[in-house]
Amino acid sequence: MNYSEETRATLLEKIQAAMSEKRFQHVLGVEKAALFLAETYGASKEKASVAALTHDYAKERSDEEFKQIIRDYGHDSDLLHWNNAIWHGLLGAELVKQELGITDESILQAIRLHTTGAAQMTLLDKIIYVADYIEPGRDIPGVEKARAIAREDLDEAVAYETKHTLAHLIDIEAPVYPKTIETYNRWVAKK
Amino acid sequence: MNYSEETRATLLEKIQAAMSEKRFQHVLGVEKAALFLAETYGASKEKASVAALTHDYAKERSDEEFKQIIRDYGHDSDLLHWNNAIWHGLLGAELVKQELGITDESILQAIRLHTTGAAQMTLLDKIIYVADYIEPGRDIPGVEKARAIAREDLDEAVAYETKHTLAHLIDIEAPVYPKTIETYNRWVAKK
Repeated sequence: MNYSEETRATLLEKIQAAMSEKRFQHVLGVEKAALFLAETYGASKEKASVAALTHDYAKERSDEEFKQIIRDYGHDSDLLHWNNAIWHGLLGAELVKQELGITDESILQAIRLHTTGAAQMTLLDKIIYVADYIEPGRDIPGVEKARAIAREDLDEAVAYETKHTLAHLIDIEAPVYPKTIETYNRWVAKK
Repeated sequence: MNYSEETRATLLEKIQAAMSEKRFQHVLGVEKAALFLAETYGASKEKASVAALTHDYAKERSDEEFKQIIRDYGHDSDLLHWNNAIWHGLLGAELVKQELGITDESILQAIRLHTTGAAQMTLLDKIIYVADYIEPGRDIPGVEKARAIAREDLDEAVAYETKHTLAHLIDIEAPVYPKTIETYNRWVAKK
C-alpha cells in the first residue's frame, strides 16, 4: 500500500467533510489507539490508520439512504429492521469502497465488523474493534480497565468490550444484533 | 384430551422414575404455577398440567444420549456443541412423545421452548416458560418480582425472565443460545 502523509491528508479531508467535528475527533482518537495496537501486536500501521479513519465514515448518513442500499444490493430484508448502529459499519464499508476508493478487503472487513465483532476476526478486525472502544476520548464506565487489558492481551480486550457492551445493551433493553452473540459465544463464553 | 386423575397419576409415576426427588419436587412446583397461570389467563389446565409435568422429563439423560439423538434425527450438527441446558427441552420433547405417548403438538412445543423461549410463543408456551421461573420452590434473585409481574401481565413476565436470565448468563460468561436473543429482541427490546 502506497500511503504517504499526502495520501493520509487527502483522506482526512474527505472524512472531516462527512461528519461532525465531535465525531471527527473520535475518529482521530481511534486512529491513535489503532496505531498503538498495531505497533504492539505487529499489524500493518498503514492499514490500521486507514481502517480507523474510515470506520465511521458513513455514520451520519440517513436511515433512508441505508434502506436504499439494503434494497439495491439485495441484502436480506431483515436488515431493514435494524438501525444506524448496525448499518454504518456493515453497509458503510461499501460507501468507503465506492466513494473513497479503498478496495483493500482486509480494511473493508474491519469496517464491517467494528460494531458487532465476529466469531472469526483477523488481527486488524480486533484492532479496530478494540480501538473504537478505548480511544483517548472515550469516557465510558470501565474504559480504563479496557485500556489496561488491551495493552496486555488483545483477545482479552475483545472479550471485555463484548461482554460489557452486551451487558449494557441488555440493561437499557436495546436490541442485540445476532452477530454480537456469535462474538460473545466465541470470545467471552469461549464456546 | 381425556385427562383424569388416574391418567395424571400414571404420568406422575413415570416422571418420578426419570429424575431425582429434588427435580420431581421442582416439576410439581412448575405444575402448580402453570395451573395458576392457566386459570388466570384462560388456557387449558389439562395441557398446562401435562406440559409442566413433562418439561424436564429428559433432563437427567446423558450427553451421549442427546448427541446420538442429534445424529439420528439429522439435526444441525452445530447442536452437538451445545449442552444439556439446551438439549433437555429441545430434544426432550421427542422423548416425551416416544416414551410417554404424548402427541399433542402444543404441549411438545411448550416443552421444546421452555428454556430459550422464542419470538413467537403461544399462551401455553409462555405459561410453561414463566412457570419454570417462578414456581414456589425457586429461590433466585428477583423471583418475587417475577411472581408479582406474572400475576398481572404474562408478556411482561416473559420479558422480565428473559432479561434477567440473559443478564445472568453474561455475568457468568456462559454461552447464549441464539434463539434466546430472538426471544430477547421480541419480548424485551420489543423490536
